[in-house]
Amino acid sequence: MVDMRADFTVLSELPLTADRQARALLSYICEPSSGIARSVRADNAEQVLTAVRSGEHGESAAATAQHRWQGVDIASVLGELAQRGGGFLTPSDPGWPSQLNDLQEVPLGLWVRGSHPLRLLAAQSVSIVGARASTNYGQRQALTMSAQLAERGFSVVSGGAYGIDAAAHRGALTAGMTVCVLASGIDTPYPSSHASLFDEIATAGVLVSEVPPHEPARRFRFLSRNRIIAALSRGTVVIEASLRSGSLGTARRARDIGRTVMAMPGPVTSDASSGCHELLRHDPDTVLVTCAADVLEVVGALGVDAVGWRSGPVNPLDSVGDDARRVHDYLTGPMTPAQVSVVCGLPHSTVMTALVELAAHRLAQRQDARWMRVAPAQIS
Amino acid sequence: MVDMRADFTVLSELPLTADRQARALLSYICEPSSGIARSVRADNAEQVLTAVRSGEHGESAAATAQHRWQGVDIASVLGELAQRGGGFLTPSDPGWPSQLNDLQEVPLGLWVRGSHPLRLLAAQSVSIVGARASTNYGQRQALTMSAQLAERGFSVVSGGAYGIDAAAHRGALTAGMTVCVLASGIDTPYPSSHASLFDEIATAGVLVSEVPPHEPARRFRFLSRNRIIAALSRGTVVIEASLRSGSLGTARRARDIGRTVMAMPGPVTSDASSGCHELLRHDPDTVLVTCAADVLEVVGALGVDAVGWRSGPVNPLDSVGDDARRVHDYLTGPMTPAQVSVVCGLPHSTVMTALVELAAHRLAQRQDARWMRVAPAQIS
Repeated sequence: MVDMRADFTVLSELPLTADRQARALLSYICEPSSGIARSVRADNAEQVLTAVRSGEHGESAAATAQHRWQGVDIASVLGELAQRGGGFLTPSDPGWPSQLNDLQEVPLGLWVRGSHPLRLLAAQSVSIVGARASTNYGQRQALTMSAQLAERGFSVVSGGAYGIDAAAHRGALTAGMTVCVLASGIDTPYPSSHASLFDEIATAGVLVSEVPPHEPARRFRFLSRNRIIAALSRGTVVIEASLRSGSLGTARRARDIGRTVMAMPGPVTSDASSGCHELLRHDPDTVLVTCAADVLEVVGALGVDAVGWRSGPVNPLDSVGDDARRVHDYLTGPMTPAQVSVVCGLPHSTVMTALVELAAHRLAQRQDARWMRVAPAQIS
Repeated sequence: MVDMRADFTVLSELPLTADRQARALLSYICEPSSGIARSVRADNAEQVLTAVRSGEHGESAAATAQHRWQGVDIASVLGELAQRGGGFLTPSDPGWPSQLNDLQEVPLGLWVRGSHPLRLLAAQSVSIVGARASTNYGQRQALTMSAQLAERGFSVVSGGAYGIDAAAHRGALTAGMTVCVLASGIDTPYPSSHASLFDEIATAGVLVSEVPPHEPARRFRFLSRNRIIAALSRGTVVIEASLRSGSLGTARRARDIGRTVMAMPGPVTSDASSGCHELLRHDPDTVLVTCAADVLEVVGALGVDAVGWRSGPVNPLDSVGDDARRVHDYLTGPMTPAQVSVVCGLPHSTVMTALVELAAHRLAQRQDARWMRVAPAQIS
């Protein structure tokens, strides 16, 4: 097996530059939409760090920083993480997944835990998200789709939540790799009952988060976390979502940055599919998908324009022309071409051509001067 | 109850004009796409009839005419039909449903049986079509949707076939009226096992056909029949269709003449829904519908642009701003505004505004100098 890490710096060996240290510290105090985060994107992180400390970003920011940095030593935090195969990845690292730069609010950095390079995993990936309150139907579909995508070399990105997210991760783990984007710290993944799932993901994939270690999941951070799920992959599939599901927000984020949004339908009697149906009903850019093959048609190399219509079993009558079909329909008993012409209202020459065409498709046969119909092998 | 027939000539009392007689006779010998039918549309029917008789449309047409007109006396055919409340409607009759003129191949006339005026029924109607090999799910949805549309004053147009068609007619009959477009003669409706359903339709709706009485159903005529189903109504709903279902052809016909195409999703595991999913997946103009209300939003007066997104139960936290949500999340115990400011990283003034906003929504309360969180009534 090829060592996928060969092209990238190993997480635990990333050098502790001043920039990395500044961004890691700033991840403790600023939300993606904050003025401090905007400053970092415009300026350099060390300068912003100094500015925060000196109160240039306001008294409350300075006070919060003092409060949150109490007892935090980035070198030892990273040292501890490194022992578990983790680290803090910044946009200038070669292992940074560059598609995150499509976001208006590019993360300052990502806390990462796992034994595979995020950049490679994200390069060929699909996000699968959905309701926590999912049904057996949705979970089974997520599991199957995810496993089939993994078999085809796609990694699956999701959020580690109950229901569809967990099924998506588990499906991917059966055949390949998965990326879990957390709203909590990578060492305190939420929900805690998924601890063994998260351990598996760290072994056969990657756990990432924008928020620092020890940070619990906070409701408002699920929204900003969703933009990372949307940005990391080529497209987002929503499998079951109620009308209020956060997955619809992930879909919106994906659409906003030009990623393909896909949704799986379900019975109209199922509330768990109602959000998917609303997406498909109101957003003409949302593509309906029923299986992994549908997803691959959309996010694969061919693009959505190359997608062909599915067709059912072939009926031989479909292969013949209108006149031949008409003749076939009137040919109820042994008839001469002249008789056929009279009953079905087509000129003699047309009837002859039609009979020959039907014979070529084994839909008619001649006995002496008369023709007889042969029933098609498959009736539509 | 208003006599809906007041505005229109009663079918059985339509005068036997030369034009009506000519068109009725021509309906015995020409298909919608034939040269004879084109001639009638361009010229007048009596002249075309004379031309056919004199062999100007070819020997085989003349021979077929002679064959099919043998023993046919239009006056007595219409007389017989009149006794059963039927007749032959032509485009110049006031009761002609003018939306049929949107078709490239306008019918020469329609054989009609029923006690309600077709034009009025068609004016506010929806077509519901689907698989003969339908599931309980599809039949139940067709029945319910159809009954609810009928309750709202819409008549339901379908093709009288097994499965979805029959469920659509039956649903409409429970609360209103329905139009059945046959591919066979109106006195020999197909399938014959639906004889009592067809009788009910003739009583509480209308049976129509392009082909003359006594004519059995012929396979190739289902295709041309479908264009009439599509044209009569404002939009066509496909409820269950396999990948080879003729209903997809009806949908295509509807789209081609600018009618709205709608499709109902189902479980992705159901072959009976696969044609609907293909329509929704590949045709961006096909609208997903889950119920009668969805259909009414599309074909009702408001039009598709006025359709609103559905939303689930309201969470009070949705009504407050981002800062208030953030404060709510950090307010884990009784805290002063200054403490809140430090832990959540927002200026003191912002925290105060947020707390007041939360209090107004019963999401926070003050005790002396400290504030406490109140859990929202409904958690998303």
